[in-house]
Amino acid sequence: MSKQEQTAISPTRTENYPEWYQQVIRASEMAELSPVRGCMVIKPWGYGLWENIQRQLDDMFKATGVKNAYFPLFIPISFLEKEAEHVEGFAKECAVVTHHKLEKGEGGRLVPAGRLNEPLIVRPTSETIIGDAFSKWIRSYRDLPMLINQWANVVRWEMRTRIFLRTSEFLWQEGHTVHATKQEAIDRTFMMLEVYRKMAEELLAIPVITGEKTESEKFPGAEVTTCIEAMMQDKKALQAGTSHFLGQNFARASGIRFQSAEEKEEFGWTTSWGASTRLIGGLVMTHGDDNGIILPPRVATAHIVLLPILKKAKETESVMTYTQDLADRLRQIHYHGAPLRVEIDARNIGGTRNWDWIKKGIPLRVEIGPKDIASNAVFLARRDMDRKQSRSVTKDRFFEEVTDILDDIQKKLFERALTFREENTHYIDAADAFDAFFTPKNSEKQEIHGGFVRAHWCGGRDCEEAIKNRLNVTIRCIPFDGEEEAGTCIECAKASRKRVVFAKAY
Amino acid sequence: MSKQEQTAISPTRTENYPEWYQQVIRASEMAELSPVRGCMVIKPWGYGLWENIQRQLDDMFKATGVKNAYFPLFIPISFLEKEAEHVEGFAKECAVVTHHKLEKGEGGRLVPAGRLNEPLIVRPTSETIIGDAFSKWIRSYRDLPMLINQWANVVRWEMRTRIFLRTSEFLWQEGHTVHATKQEAIDRTFMMLEVYRKMAEELLAIPVITGEKTESEKFPGAEVTTCIEAMMQDKKALQAGTSHFLGQNFARASGIRFQSAEEKEEFGWTTSWGASTRLIGGLVMTHGDDNGIILPPRVATAHIVLLPILKKAKETESVMTYTQDLADRLRQIHYHGAPLRVEIDARNIGGTRNWDWIKKGIPLRVEIGPKDIASNAVFLARRDMDRKQSRSVTKDRFFEEVTDILDDIQKKLFERALTFREENTHYIDAADAFDAFFTPKNSEKQEIHGGFVRAHWCGGRDCEEAIKNRLNVTIRCIPFDGEEEAGTCIECAKASRKRVVFAKAY
Repeated sequence: MSKQEQTAISPTRTENYPEWYQQVIRASEMAELSPVRGCMVIKPWGYGLWENIQRQLDDMFKATGVKNAYFPLFIPISFLEKEAEHVEGFAKECAVVTHHKLEKGEGGRLVPAGRLNEPLIVRPTSETIIGDAFSKWIRSYRDLPMLINQWANVVRWEMRTRIFLRTSEFLWQEGHTVHATKQEAIDRTFMMLEVYRKMAEELLAIPVITGEKTESEKFPGAEVTTCIEAMMQDKKALQAGTSHFLGQNFARASGIRFQSAEEKEEFGWTTSWGASTRLIGGLVMTHGDDNGIILPPRVATAHIVLLPILKKAKETESVMTYTQDLADRLRQIHYHGAPLRVEIDARNIGGTRNWDWIKKGIPLRVEIGPKDIASNAVFLARRDMDRKQSRSVTKDRFFEEVTDILDDIQKKLFERALTFREENTHYIDAADAFDAFFTPKNSEKQEIHGGFVRAHWCGGRDCEEAIKNRLNVTIRCIPFDGEEEAGTCIECAKASRKRVVFAKAY
Repeated sequence: MSKQEQTAISPTRTENYPEWYQQVIRASEMAELSPVRGCMVIKPWGYGLWENIQRQLDDMFKATGVKNAYFPLFIPISFLEKEAEHVEGFAKECAVVTHHKLEKGEGGRLVPAGRLNEPLIVRPTSETIIGDAFSKWIRSYRDLPMLINQWANVVRWEMRTRIFLRTSEFLWQEGHTVHATKQEAIDRTFMMLEVYRKMAEELLAIPVITGEKTESEKFPGAEVTTCIEAMMQDKKALQAGTSHFLGQNFARASGIRFQSAEEKEEFGWTTSWGASTRLIGGLVMTHGDDNGIILPPRVATAHIVLLPILKKAKETESVMTYTQDLADRLRQIHYHGAPLRVEIDARNIGGTRNWDWIKKGIPLRVEIGPKDIASNAVFLARRDMDRKQSRSVTKDRFFEEVTDILDDIQKKLFERALTFREENTHYIDAADAFDAFFTPKNSEKQEIHGGFVRAHWCGGRDCEEAIKNRLNVTIRCIPFDGEEEAGTCIECAKASRKRVVFAKAY
């Protein structure tokens, strides 16, 4: 696309990244903010994407022996209070249910009535309520491991919301497991992190760094929080999934005890792990361009839209028949285990139609006019390529190649994102260079600058906090990929054995 | 089973039907009540069943053009107030959120803080919040029909709960559609009722009567409520799904307007339709026997459990290899579009193991011992038959026949339930016979008596209410199957043109 050409999304990424994000979501019709403070409406084009993520992630969980269950939406305050760090982390932003009916008050307006003896909170996460169930289900080592997942809505009251990234209500899955030994629980923590890595990289085409959170960034109540971190196109980090080793903290809080093979009563070792609709925000910010979102084929709401060109009334029937036949045959082709998802858009609205689908990010657009029918062909456009690279292919060749083309799009999206991350990852050893890197130059916008910096850190909370306060930069993780090497802390110059990943973050 | 033989569930159905129900749920490990008032925990064996219902029902919705979306959990009180009948129906039992955080109060206990300006209720159903979104999405007749479904949790505060049948929180789907004409909305109402009928009869093997609710039994705010009604084994009725024609009531309340093809501004015509985890309760009460639940194969959490007989250590390896190979091969067989779901239970706990699976209602149990291996066979037991009818079949024949056997179980369950309903459906024309029928005789338990009575009704609310007050019997529906015929109202003897279905109900 030439520079003069207008883009479908205004502003562009470089003009105003946060506003570009909102506009891309709006233009794609994936979701919108609702009149209920901080809550979003996920529209069909966004929800279909979530369903595709959900179904494949669910299959990956089940392949490791996990089963789904469902636990109450409400948590009594007394449950939340059981784990000290946990309550500190979640009491500050939760929806509290205090009454169980409405009555007509003064002026005929409805007012809360029927006060509850003990207020309930709407779950921000379910460790405590699931822990209570586990304490009843588990008696002996024979009941272990207990491997449970829940797909649910959760609520964390947010004052400043950004759609998909930070909303008061969001959808997620939360896995909760109990094990007889510490090692087994640690192994499960890493096993689920690897599931998330595969999901992010292979399904969402988002390259991620796996690592461990620092003490100050970990989940309230966890011993170890592991995570996958991705780089968005504004060079900020997004945490895309977390897997926690909870030690015996929640087992003690909830009374999850079992009799061991040696007939000793012991506390279980637990893990929890979650990923949410936030992934959709990450996907938009990884793959979107100035014309809208680009959906990776493995999770795309639909793979292909057929666009019959209906200019003359007498041609309509033959074009529509050809189109419908094409759709039927495409839907018989399987792509990674499921039929191709094909839409037909027969609206006669001119060029807007094409642009609607570009903004929605559908991987393939196929135009069908009388000329294409005459040559038994279709006119094919890839969302990840310039429109000028669209080409005519015969129908037979299209059927043969369509899944390869989709795989190629998937691969190219991942490679592009990986290249972007690598180009924006730096190894910095000098404190002044570090500060300069994270301070926007005059020529740079506040919103897009910086990147990932791999720098040495002594392990001290003070250094971490000083950097955070000064630069708004956090340690995203202590990465698992880094080799040990001798160095000095970027803040205090004390000895360090390993580099960590610093970045500004969502 | 001979009368002397002990049953797995105590009490039996005839001894104490309500308690039998609770015990069947407990013994099957499908669900349990939680410590949170009125909320249940759906355990993996119950949730798997729900997932199978959900996936197939979802496919049926999508085949009619419906797409899924997701709307906020919270509804502002002012939204609920928009439709007068609706608010009357739901304000009396709803969870009210009044605060958005917790703070340490006197004695260090957490207390609600951060009072909301406008309290929110947890959705009991979403007509009003979805109507608000629709009012923004719909501009022109070209945007219609709007066909949206949501899978969600809903809350209706219940003081007296019964697991799956009446709980404060339950899972369901709610479909919401908008149409340009009244007729189209009515057609959609019936189309979705037919989807529910198919789901109940073909997937759950529950025969249902389709019909229309009377004025006093319909959904708050609806013009017409259609429903499917099933007969449980205690001869009571269970409403298993409803589809509502809402006229323009909610369109007016929410401002759902569109410009017609004639360029006139008009209100949309809306429908809504829902089915919930209540279906699981209905399934238990339709197919359960005194040994537990029997799962219809089309929705069973698992189809087959393989039970290796591991008596001697030296045989263990060969038996387990044979079992694993059997499982692998069975999982390659497709049953109604999905792979067979196969469990292996290698616990060495004697006869308890077999009974565990009987109570869980798995359609097929397969025992595998050294003798079976020697003859290349398996020992097969059907849950719907007496254990004495178990038989040895060769492995090859089992592979060939397994899906037919499952279909046969499915068919037999449906036929058995249909026969039961027919045997317990009566045509009664005399008022005293009607009253006698619904009054337990000395020899009958309060819990199991009566049945469905097809009797004439004048259409008057007074007659309906008098019967309800005197006998606790309601009009379940005005059935669509009944022919018009001249008769007299069972209560007031005025002229009637049609019989309706009376029953006690859940």
